[in-house]
Amino acid sequence: MKVVNLAEKLALFATHRDPKVVAEYNGNDIMVVKVEGAFPFHDHPDTDGFFLVPEGEVLLYVEDRTHVLRPGESFVVPTGVRHRPRAEREATLKQIEPRGTPSTGDAATAAQKDRI
Amino acid sequence: MKVVNLAEKLALFATHRDPKVVAEYNGNDIMVVKVEGAFPFHDHPDTDGFFLVPEGEVLLYVEDRTHVLRPGESFVVPTGVRHRPRAEREATLKQIEPRGTPSTGDAATAAQKDRI
Repeated sequence: MKVVNLAEKLALFATHRDPKVVAEYNGNDIMVVKVEGAFPFHDHPDTDGFFLVPEGEVLLYVEDRTHVLRPGESFVVPTGVRHRPRAEREATLKQIEPRGTPSTGDAATAAQKDRI
Repeated sequence: MKVVNLAEKLALFATHRDPKVVAEYNGNDIMVVKVEGAFPFHDHPDTDGFFLVPEGEVLLYVEDRTHVLRPGESFVVPTGVRHRPRAEREATLKQIEPRGTPSTGDAATAAQKDRI
């Protein structure tokens, strides 16, 4: 049990689209990820996806709409709904997903989620 | 589906220790709460507790230690572990709990969690 400082965790890595696990909650991974550029469109057939933007600006394409997420803003993408995060400039996301959920919706292309 | 702005949600109410639900994730309530003063010591026998501090400073007493949470810092209290949040001055907490979890660990004293 310890305090998790988001800025300290984000300073530990430089890669993009590479979620790092910072805590666990009831079998879910709480993760931070740096994003720049676009993820592929994907969905998660078995889980909602929770996104919170601590820093920067993230465009979240959800079905046929674009949502702009700024610092302190969050969004839940329901189970099975196609979506794609995108950032023009480096931004950060805090995400919650059940442990083992592939970041891209596909185990073949998903990033490994290291604990930091 | 919509963007949830934390500051806008927090501006909607003035009471303390009165969690408001702002989103849902896989059967969990994502809540914001304003805190000032101390909660009673309690535990949750069936769930971890996730705390994130957007604004202010929250002291989290966990068993025999005091953890200081500042903006951007988070903490997971594992299932069954006694804890008590406390704030000298008004602060805010973002929390995640399974829907229906009593905020004080006891349905008789728990706050109602309205959706805002």
